[in-house]
Amino acid sequence: MFYARRKNGSEKGSVCMKTDIQIAQEAVLEPISDVAASLGLNGESLIPYGKYKAKVDHRLVKKLAEKKDAKVILVTAISPTPAGEGKTTTSVGLADALHRMGKNVVLALREPSLGPVFGVKGGAAGGGYAQVVPMEDINLHFTGDLHAIGAANNLLAAMVDNHIYQGNALNIDPRRITWKRCVDMNDRQLRFITDGLGGKANGTPREDGFDITVASEVMAIFCLATDLADLKARLGRIVVGYTYAGAPVTAEQIGAAGAMAALLKDAFDPNLVQTLEHTPALVHGGPFANIAHGCNSVIATKLGMKLADYVVTEAGFGADLGAEKFLDIKCRLSGIEPSAVVVVATVRALKHHGGCPKAELGVPSLEYLEAGSANLARHVENMQSKFGLPVCVAINAFPTDSPEEHQYLRDLCARLGVPCALSEVFAKGGAGGLELAEDVLGILEKRPVRFTYPDDAPVADKVRAVCKNIYGAADVAFSAAAKKQLAELDTGGFGRLPVCIAKTQYSFSDDASLLAAPSGFTMTVRELRLSAGAGFVVVVMGNIMTMPGLPKKPAAEGIDVDENGVISGLF
Amino acid sequence: MFYARRKNGSEKGSVCMKTDIQIAQEAVLEPISDVAASLGLNGESLIPYGKYKAKVDHRLVKKLAEKKDAKVILVTAISPTPAGEGKTTTSVGLADALHRMGKNVVLALREPSLGPVFGVKGGAAGGGYAQVVPMEDINLHFTGDLHAIGAANNLLAAMVDNHIYQGNALNIDPRRITWKRCVDMNDRQLRFITDGLGGKANGTPREDGFDITVASEVMAIFCLATDLADLKARLGRIVVGYTYAGAPVTAEQIGAAGAMAALLKDAFDPNLVQTLEHTPALVHGGPFANIAHGCNSVIATKLGMKLADYVVTEAGFGADLGAEKFLDIKCRLSGIEPSAVVVVATVRALKHHGGCPKAELGVPSLEYLEAGSANLARHVENMQSKFGLPVCVAINAFPTDSPEEHQYLRDLCARLGVPCALSEVFAKGGAGGLELAEDVLGILEKRPVRFTYPDDAPVADKVRAVCKNIYGAADVAFSAAAKKQLAELDTGGFGRLPVCIAKTQYSFSDDASLLAAPSGFTMTVRELRLSAGAGFVVVVMGNIMTMPGLPKKPAAEGIDVDENGVISGLF
Repeated sequence: MFYARRKNGSEKGSVCMKTDIQIAQEAVLEPISDVAASLGLNGESLIPYGKYKAKVDHRLVKKLAEKKDAKVILVTAISPTPAGEGKTTTSVGLADALHRMGKNVVLALREPSLGPVFGVKGGAAGGGYAQVVPMEDINLHFTGDLHAIGAANNLLAAMVDNHIYQGNALNIDPRRITWKRCVDMNDRQLRFITDGLGGKANGTPREDGFDITVASEVMAIFCLATDLADLKARLGRIVVGYTYAGAPVTAEQIGAAGAMAALLKDAFDPNLVQTLEHTPALVHGGPFANIAHGCNSVIATKLGMKLADYVVTEAGFGADLGAEKFLDIKCRLSGIEPSAVVVVATVRALKHHGGCPKAELGVPSLEYLEAGSANLARHVENMQSKFGLPVCVAINAFPTDSPEEHQYLRDLCARLGVPCALSEVFAKGGAGGLELAEDVLGILEKRPVRFTYPDDAPVADKVRAVCKNIYGAADVAFSAAAKKQLAELDTGGFGRLPVCIAKTQYSFSDDASLLAAPSGFTMTVRELRLSAGAGFVVVVMGNIMTMPGLPKKPAAEGIDVDENGVISGLF
Repeated sequence: MFYARRKNGSEKGSVCMKTDIQIAQEAVLEPISDVAASLGLNGESLIPYGKYKAKVDHRLVKKLAEKKDAKVILVTAISPTPAGEGKTTTSVGLADALHRMGKNVVLALREPSLGPVFGVKGGAAGGGYAQVVPMEDINLHFTGDLHAIGAANNLLAAMVDNHIYQGNALNIDPRRITWKRCVDMNDRQLRFITDGLGGKANGTPREDGFDITVASEVMAIFCLATDLADLKARLGRIVVGYTYAGAPVTAEQIGAAGAMAALLKDAFDPNLVQTLEHTPALVHGGPFANIAHGCNSVIATKLGMKLADYVVTEAGFGADLGAEKFLDIKCRLSGIEPSAVVVVATVRALKHHGGCPKAELGVPSLEYLEAGSANLARHVENMQSKFGLPVCVAINAFPTDSPEEHQYLRDLCARLGVPCALSEVFAKGGAGGLELAEDVLGILEKRPVRFTYPDDAPVADKVRAVCKNIYGAADVAFSAAAKKQLAELDTGGFGRLPVCIAKTQYSFSDDASLLAAPSGFTMTVRELRLSAGAGFVVVVMGNIMTMPGLPKKPAAEGIDVDENGVISGLF
């Protein structure tokens, strides 16, 4: 997501540009069948949703099993800041640049959630001249995947409470139901509720709460499943709560897995759209990057790998969270191996890491930049030395950047031994990404990922490995509750699952105020949450927000549609 | 909806038939572009959703304003019973029969809600050989309309609570918020809740609750709006609650109307599918028939009237509820005038009205039939004498019916002066509806609807008019609360809106146990609810359920999908 440019559009030195929605609405799109044809897809495998969106039969992945896999390029970033990094924008622009160079390339991106669209001003389909379109559709209901995920989530919830209401044969303890309902909306009012009130005919009173749909384990499962059978099996393994005796109760025991999979069967086919420059884009799945792994779906990435020679994909938040989970969870599980990692940085964001006050982010300063660049350096070193992957850096250019600042970063990258390109895709589209594309093509090399921890290590050891090796922590503490949960996970047979760490995205540590590249800190595991269907243990460090709220002036107030269906106010 | 046949499939005398989903899945569908072409629609106005579903640009209604309107045939029924009537099945079969006769006909039906699909065993796409297809899609997410309606509903709810959280500039009384959240699921646990718990950062604690999506006023508005501008204006008029001073607060004041309309802009285009016999069907909108008016969308009906020569449509529940609201609300508002009314009855259901025990419904009995037929007679007389419309009766045939029973009903209809046809569309498709189609063509005549009450009558007078003239009540009592609300409606300028009566569908009265054609009863108005956006006042008589629950064994437990996406267990 890329908010900063628009918020700072009126800053001194910035170029007056059109808004994203203006650029997107002025674009002349190709019929989606033509975009599909450029990937060798015919009507057989294509399910059109309007003229510019389609779903692609996911079974193609198996049908094309013999075909050589594309090279995967992972776009990740420095630790996010309020100044904006532009990971999706860079991904789109890089793919457009490769497309301009005549390469057979496809994007594999996450799909946006409705909630943030109506909250802060921002879609999640890139920005400027590096966008996927139709942006209004992608940012609103798209092809309905999130609604299907929400319905599957809420069917399970209704069936759990109905099971208790109808006699509770499984002996579920209503105080220990862990499965929450969800809604695709920023709605803080639903975070903590009591439901089942109103007497015997209306359920069993208990404490409950809603998550935003992207935080549902169904979304994580959806993004990790390799086919419909695997999807159904994972849904069945979801632990919805515990019996009075403390035994886990699964969705399979509730009898919900088949109907949940039926609700998801259309959604599971990856969505095909295009960039402003007609580069094909698979936009599919979008799990939270804290309590889930923050990557687009495995099935879409694999489909892209069968349809093109290059797949450009991204992972949520900074490389410590997004890329780590992409590699240690998604790649471990799916066998996908990236051939290059692009770390996106901006001068503004690095200056923020260097302690620069917000008002001065647009003023050139090598001092702040130098102080903050340690953040970039550690992310690059992690990808390069820890995971053993070829890395390059993309500086997402802002009008307020100075040539000296760009040169400083080029010199830094030279010292780190990685190429560094200036990316001007926001302003220029694919033409502004050619240097980056050349860099990427120059480093491409398929090397086996060096995972942070072995499959069979206990959960606590896995947590320590990520915290120490990737984050730079000196030590990890476990709360009393977390220690108890570690033991319970062992008892339940979940003691060796991969770990999905939920911590602040703003720092390598679990303290959002420790910017740049802190070290010597101790991290505290507050709580563990089992995602048995997704197949990982969520490790909670600090507060974890699974239901955002709307701001003082929600973006929704400015969104409108005219009598011809033309939408305005989306940015 | 048509459940009884399947539930009684193993009864003595019944023919062993395939299930609905088996019949539907064996059907060879025409590409939706061909179905559209049969209506003169080209790619310009057609938005495909997969190969067998499409949306049609609603602006065609205005573009074709000069074209002559089709004749509208309204299918309604006797008071529903657990024995089943088959209104949708008859509608589909009648349209198929007209299609076989070479008529240019289109269906205009309601779209199903997910909740009941997972609850009781039943879709809402007709039955047997009279179905609209693809039935799995139509019964699951279809083209996402209900999800869009739910999202618009819940965006408004989140914005109301956010308004209070952010300072409550409008002075909304949290105890008097009338706007509820919704979910498209049968989930009794959400009927009565408290939300906004968990301290200051998490909202304002208050009592709240969820409705099923089809009960949302957004659905009613969606089904009454004539274009996007009207939709937005109606959404803006929604009253979400009251200030501490008692003044109504609208969605417009909350700033939500534009974004809600943006969420609904794709959904607002009517959906085109086909019957098993390739008759075009517009399946669009499906408001509850108690707290809303229970008809498909005005925009789809009007679109059908521009595309075909005959439109077959239906209204929810029995003619006292569905047809009355179709005429007094939908027709009054939209100017649509039906040229014929078909009243569907079954021998079994009439015997139920005559007091026949459930176990004996399949045993021929003129005695029970005669006793119950008063229900049919009153519905026919209402349509004929009260509303002044041409009427015919369709006997939806069951294998357990006897020829004598059919003859009894034919004689009764002769005495009432209306044609009576045996409809065998469940078993034979359109071929089983030819007699009915002939009857309908024979009575078609456009007469002005005689509304039950004039536009400018006060709400209380309107209620009395419906209760006495249509239901046969001797008197109407208003509770103290209802009297107070009448005064408030007057003060707010809502005192002359049409009325939408919410009462049991099983009886003409407000007592579900008074079957056949009761008279001399007094009805009690418990409560009034303002639907200012939809433009009517809901008049609550008895208990009104806006969130169903799941049964002991939910249908969801039997629903499944295989690895190729083939769904089973939907009926």
